[in-house]
Amino acid sequence: MTNIKLTISYDGTDYHGWQKQSDRETVQGVIEATIKKLFREEVSLQGASRTDAGVHAQGQVANFRLEKEINLKKIQEALNSKLPKDVVILKVEEVEDSFNARFAARGKHYQYVIYNVSLASPFEKNYSLFFPYPLNIEKMQAAAGYLMGTLDFASFGVNPGKKIDSTVRTIDYLKVVKKEKKIFIDIKGDSFLYKMVRTIIGTLLEVGREKKNPEEVREILKKRDRTFAAKTASASGLYLKEVFY
Amino acid sequence: MTNIKLTISYDGTDYHGWQKQSDRETVQGVIEATIKKLFREEVSLQGASRTDAGVHAQGQVANFRLEKEINLKKIQEALNSKLPKDVVILKVEEVEDSFNARFAARGKHYQYVIYNVSLASPFEKNYSLFFPYPLNIEKMQAAAGYLMGTLDFASFGVNPGKKIDSTVRTIDYLKVVKKEKKIFIDIKGDSFLYKMVRTIIGTLLEVGREKKNPEEVREILKKRDRTFAAKTASASGLYLKEVFY
Repeated sequence: MTNIKLTISYDGTDYHGWQKQSDRETVQGVIEATIKKLFREEVSLQGASRTDAGVHAQGQVANFRLEKEINLKKIQEALNSKLPKDVVILKVEEVEDSFNARFAARGKHYQYVIYNVSLASPFEKNYSLFFPYPLNIEKMQAAAGYLMGTLDFASFGVNPGKKIDSTVRTIDYLKVVKKEKKIFIDIKGDSFLYKMVRTIIGTLLEVGREKKNPEEVREILKKRDRTFAAKTASASGLYLKEVFY
Repeated sequence: MTNIKLTISYDGTDYHGWQKQSDRETVQGVIEATIKKLFREEVSLQGASRTDAGVHAQGQVANFRLEKEINLKKIQEALNSKLPKDVVILKVEEVEDSFNARFAARGKHYQYVIYNVSLASPFEKNYSLFFPYPLNIEKMQAAAGYLMGTLDFASFGVNPGKKIDSTVRTIDYLKVVKKEKKIFIDIKGDSFLYKMVRTIIGTLLEVGREKKNPEEVREILKKRDRTFAAKTASASGLYLKEVFY
């Protein structure tokens, strides 16, 4: 029995997210089905992040246990030749038996991409948020400053777990950078509440449009009530870049 | 009656090319249907280039005649709000009555994009040709040199017209440039035979892989026989960048 760690990139456009569903195409579902077809073993793939429908990944991590002894390079080649072209296995590694991609994760890096021009591009439709209004980057960056650290993010998301009640999370890094027509927001933290990243982005967009002052983000945090933060930003702009162990 | 010129960008992935077909979704078809819905006029859209299924455009040009007098900015806004997000109207202009986007075109600029790395990217699947083998750019450039000028391209394509027999065309510009993981091949010419651009790309790829010498391109031209050139390269890498008038 080998415990195998996969690093995965996918275009989430045509998937109903990571997590397997009986009636809909998901990334976990398509990889498990491909493993079964190739190696004739029913495996259970544990993913580090349950990305939502339309969210992309450039460094999702998952693990599964395989009975057969198969060369790791062969596993990668076989998977990439059989998987649909919108899912690519970047790396295959053998890991110690106790490794669990979800519970061993110490942190994650997400990136959000905003296409900030007056006219949409057909090539960006699934890969960024089209935002045709001017944005004040300095104010967005100032607001981002208030969201870094170990804070209670109850206003920005819902705890996805059933057992752990805490809505306290640590954001180590939150940066807003404009490069030509695009704005990149990079966020790194230990773990995130359900839809927390996209709610933070939605709130930063309201600050960028000058509908909210950067300081108001502090007030929103204090409320500990999801109704005070902005709408979640669309899934198409979100990328899981890396999982840290 | 106003003669209206549109400059159009589209992601060709989900279309059966530009030209209208009764039973399949095409770019011409979807724009004509949208004009009809918006302005209640049955129009006939004349496109400069009949791009094939899967080919993209960043500067396709088309014209149509509208009876109603409508502000050009309004036409653009209305079209962009009703068209599917993979078709975007970049510009709307009034042109003289005699203007015909197809027959007035003096030249076209196409770009072909090759993703030249060992591992495919899910984000490139519809937007470039994934080519995992090493390519000799200098040799490709040398071969490109033999294809510039006014030459008989009978070996590289079929005349799409029924009346004009000549397979002589002029290529003014053909350049191969590598930028990080991508190779861009830009080609400008007066007009192109059916599938001529993608057959040139296919042939340059064989030279790049050192299966053919650059000089052999001259021999292929001399044969005036389509069977001597390489297979046409896939549509997903091809972009119509600009039409010259």
